[in-house]
Amino acid sequence: MELLTINNVWMMICTALVFFMHLGFAFLEIGLTRQKNTLNILFKNIFIITVGLLLYCLVGFNLMYPGDFNGFIGFAGFGLDSPLTAEGTLDLTYNEGYTYWTDFLFQGMFAATAATIVSGAVAERMKIGPFMMFTVIYVGLIYPIAGSWKWGGGFLQTLETPFYDFAGSTLVHSVGGWAALVAVYLLGSRIGKFKNGKPQAIPGHNIPLATAGVIILWLGWFGFNGGSVLSADPSLTSLTLVTTCLAAAAGGVVAALVSTLKYKNLDLTMFLNGILGGLVGITAGADQMSPTDAIIIGAVAGATIVFAVALVDKIRLDDPVGAIAVHLACGIWGTLAVGIFGALASGAQLVSQFIGVVSYAGTCITSSFLIIFILKKTVGIRISEREELEGLDAHEHSMYAYPDFRLNEH
Amino acid sequence: MELLTINNVWMMICTALVFFMHLGFAFLEIGLTRQKNTLNILFKNIFIITVGLLLYCLVGFNLMYPGDFNGFIGFAGFGLDSPLTAEGTLDLTYNEGYTYWTDFLFQGMFAATAATIVSGAVAERMKIGPFMMFTVIYVGLIYPIAGSWKWGGGFLQTLETPFYDFAGSTLVHSVGGWAALVAVYLLGSRIGKFKNGKPQAIPGHNIPLATAGVIILWLGWFGFNGGSVLSADPSLTSLTLVTTCLAAAAGGVVAALVSTLKYKNLDLTMFLNGILGGLVGITAGADQMSPTDAIIIGAVAGATIVFAVALVDKIRLDDPVGAIAVHLACGIWGTLAVGIFGALASGAQLVSQFIGVVSYAGTCITSSFLIIFILKKTVGIRISEREELEGLDAHEHSMYAYPDFRLNEH
Amino acid sequence: MELLTINNVWMMICTALVFFMHLGFAFLEIGLTRQKNTLNILFKNIFIITVGLLLYCLVGFNLMYPGDFNGFIGFAGFGLDSPLTAEGTLDLTYNEGYTYWTDFLFQGMFAATAATIVSGAVAERMKIGPFMMFTVIYVGLIYPIAGSWKWGGGFLQTLETPFYDFAGSTLVHSVGGWAALVAVYLLGSRIGKFKNGKPQAIPGHNIPLATAGVIILWLGWFGFNGGSVLSADPSLTSLTLVTTCLAAAAGGVVAALVSTLKYKNLDLTMFLNGILGGLVGITAGADQMSPTDAIIIGAVAGATIVFAVALVDKIRLDDPVGAIAVHLACGIWGTLAVGIFGALASGAQLVSQFIGVVSYAGTCITSSFLIIFILKKTVGIRISEREELEGLDAHEHSMYAYPDFRLNEH
Repeated sequence: MELLTINNVWMMICTALVFFMHLGFAFLEIGLTRQKNTLNILFKNIFIITVGLLLYCLVGFNLMYPGDFNGFIGFAGFGLDSPLTAEGTLDLTYNEGYTYWTDFLFQGMFAATAATIVSGAVAERMKIGPFMMFTVIYVGLIYPIAGSWKWGGGFLQTLETPFYDFAGSTLVHSVGGWAALVAVYLLGSRIGKFKNGKPQAIPGHNIPLATAGVIILWLGWFGFNGGSVLSADPSLTSLTLVTTCLAAAAGGVVAALVSTLKYKNLDLTMFLNGILGGLVGITAGADQMSPTDAIIIGAVAGATIVFAVALVDKIRLDDPVGAIAVHLACGIWGTLAVGIFGALASGAQLVSQFIGVVSYAGTCITSSFLIIFILKKTVGIRISEREELEGLDAHEHSMYAYPDFRLNEH
Repeated sequence: MELLTINNVWMMICTALVFFMHLGFAFLEIGLTRQKNTLNILFKNIFIITVGLLLYCLVGFNLMYPGDFNGFIGFAGFGLDSPLTAEGTLDLTYNEGYTYWTDFLFQGMFAATAATIVSGAVAERMKIGPFMMFTVIYVGLIYPIAGSWKWGGGFLQTLETPFYDFAGSTLVHSVGGWAALVAVYLLGSRIGKFKNGKPQAIPGHNIPLATAGVIILWLGWFGFNGGSVLSADPSLTSLTLVTTCLAAAAGGVVAALVSTLKYKNLDLTMFLNGILGGLVGITAGADQMSPTDAIIIGAVAGATIVFAVALVDKIRLDDPVGAIAVHLACGIWGTLAVGIFGALASGAQLVSQFIGVVSYAGTCITSSFLIIFILKKTVGIRISEREELEGLDAHEHSMYAYPDFRLNEH
Repeated sequence: MELLTINNVWMMICTALVFFMHLGFAFLEIGLTRQKNTLNILFKNIFIITVGLLLYCLVGFNLMYPGDFNGFIGFAGFGLDSPLTAEGTLDLTYNEGYTYWTDFLFQGMFAATAATIVSGAVAERMKIGPFMMFTVIYVGLIYPIAGSWKWGGGFLQTLETPFYDFAGSTLVHSVGGWAALVAVYLLGSRIGKFKNGKPQAIPGHNIPLATAGVIILWLGWFGFNGGSVLSADPSLTSLTLVTTCLAAAAGGVVAALVSTLKYKNLDLTMFLNGILGGLVGITAGADQMSPTDAIIIGAVAGATIVFAVALVDKIRLDDPVGAIAVHLACGIWGTLAVGIFGALASGAQLVSQFIGVVSYAGTCITSSFLIIFILKKTVGIRISEREELEGLDAHEHSMYAYPDFRLNEH
């Protein structure tokens, strides 16, 4: 009883920290984009977190954890159904690490994250209606079904050498990242992003908030990774926090270093995205790594960020906040790294990790393409040129983020 | 000993989260008002939290928890008096859920909240001196005395069917809300709020901070409601977090939906206030509801917000941040909902809830009217027209919130 | 096992809270300075936290806690070396309050703080390269060596009446404060700070963020002081939070009061710095004081702030954020207060406290002078006049914090 109580306290705190990540995402996304689309981005983020949680209550939780199932798709029924004792009280033997309620809420807070990743990538040019429709389907159905393959005990869990993804480098970050890639491809780039094929910098309008967003996300990752231990086990939770923080630090420093060498400029946003890259990279194996492993994984992730951002530009995709580099490239790297570094490293593990990456790639690319392509051909996904130039805040919301400030138009 | 330690850890964390709500209130209040009054609002918020805590130490705690008393007013003496063992160490048998110190601090963090609610409602036109005087009396005396009627074991607790208010839909939010209503009535509306009797929108100057404020408040509510279990009991705390989050989500979504249908506009501030309404609504019975109950209570609160905001406008009261709709209307709703939904629902309970609502209404309206009316007739409560037009920051503080930015005057 | 688990949970949460303080520092520092140097300050803060953590992993932790050593300097070797059981798992008998990993991370989060204090003081005119070099040496070597004298069991711990510094009024805050003093002296004042010898106010550009910074720092202090108990002991942790919060409140109120009497102005920044002063002041003895002691210590710290800020101005030092007044003056006060108030108060203790203050003064002044003086004579530490006028963001980073906003130049 004491042990359940303490485990459950830790899990509730981690739940709160993961919830708080949504402020981190919101600040990062608005900070790295233009002021004229700020309110729109905030609206999307608030939509994602509220609707995401309700959907996870309605169907997501029972799609992701269906109990015994065929390993590909299962559903335990609508709504929440808490296990009860004979006396009608909550059955605390459900799990020694948390109660049924904590389980739902912790997982529910994860669910919305995938859609948030997409939100940043499509910022400044996507209609809000279709974005909300995409979110409902992707968060409500695709994310939990795909998640069940590993965390729900599905086919990736039952491989001879099970696929391993501790806290979601693939199940959360790549799932969001693949959809971001598809969405950005189907949506096209913002007006002015490419001139004669050359990428133009469109500076973010509020760097203090972007920086705050990254610090808040790092803080939230204490819960994201620390809570993925699914108990308060002292060795595992504390090791996880150490590897998480060291990877974040290494990712930031290496990204700043590489970007300074490459571009001769002390670029804060590269520093920030490097931190996020390190965090995403360590997420798949945060409980399996030594501090040295963590620093290496973070460092590689930091370098990856710089080159991935350049690559995304080169193939003329427009990702205003670097979501593809951070969540997809580093998500893949982190997932594969479990087969290379740490306690699980082996050839067989690397193969399983690769199988996992490919499975999610196929599913996420296909499903997000289908959803967004259909939306594009029916209701349309792109705002008009005039709306884009004047900003989504004016056209989709008739409200402004900063009405008392004099602003530059661009 | 282990159980006390873990319970106490949970309560300390909840205390920290409730403390953090003051940043949420500050961001929300400045975000929804004009930049020229920003520093003034921040000053008031910092005043409330510091002075509120000192007053709670000096008199509040012992007014609110006087021990055996007549059920209406009691006082256990000035200052803090920690229970000691024979050896002179802190007596840990005080309560199995927390120590004496944690008890004081958790309750102290609640105390300041009521005044903060008023702060938002009177923003942009009230003199700071009288506001500080009001705060001292209301937080120092009225809040704890009124609180003792239920949480201190007073007459509302000793009704045959005791009045129930888990975490303060009435004891905190309505107590603030009633005073906000009275203050706004006595103060009058801001210049320009009503033209020919029609309410004019006065847009808030920093929507990112307002949004951040709501997310921080939601986070803080993990502690506000989760800590009101007064232990780390796994079933109750985790259920409470689930009902709290689902009500918040439902409140936001329904407020956004109703407001979009009513005004044909995707209004972010309604979405945000809907979340707050859901949170205030669930607060009275967060530990008694099923997830479905919570969603219904939140949804009704969300709809209530939209209509209450319109009603406040209609009767020509000027509440810049929607405090009356959020804290008073949803506070009353949430309190009554305990008699309608969940484990306590019954006719007798509903009657007791009604008695509670009326008791606090009478007391808070009377006391806040007396205080503010006397202030109005003596020192005056309203700034001059010129001060209002130029802003409180310039006149009350001779400092500006954003000196490097070029600003619009309005 | 249960007890270790709960203790360790508390320590991990406190670690997260101390980490979060870096957002508090960042917001405070940018908020109190001009917008043209915002990105630069954020870059420095992100640099400090990432590099600081990596350095603490590489050398700091083992310099600060070298095991048996001569009491002045010791080193347990590069990197982290976790204690293992015979079976190769983490040895949980390391400490009953936390695991080896938690120990490292909690202490690592403290390490970066000292450099952050300097960052604020030298803002708006120091070259970033030399600042980064200074940080590496000061955080990587000086801070942990000086820390070992007390927390590592060194000579100040082995005095007949041991020097006492619970959570770092001296070991963290004064260590940063002395270096800030030296740096500010060697660097000179910002252009325009003194006209005909008279100090001119250079207003901070974003008071909402500065206020948020202080609230976040206060929140972080729950972990900074609460975690310094090094376990979740219910009496000590909860007492510590109470004394911490009461000192903060008293510091703020008294600073506001004194400053209002002295300058006839309701000065929010004095209120904020008073809170910080109270927090720094209580830090040395937060676990030893009664609530009344805490209020007195905080109140004296609050008054100290007002006079120390005036004194710094008077001797023509330019400290844009008040770091010397807050961290040095109140750090000394708080350290001495342990000999005057609370459970340890005695003449002998006061002498030991004085020895501690002088030891750190000598070491920190000497070492920071040497480092910065050498940097000044070699690479130079001050940006050019043109760079200073146009801002560090433009010259060191070629990026701007707020590109969409129209700004005043000054």
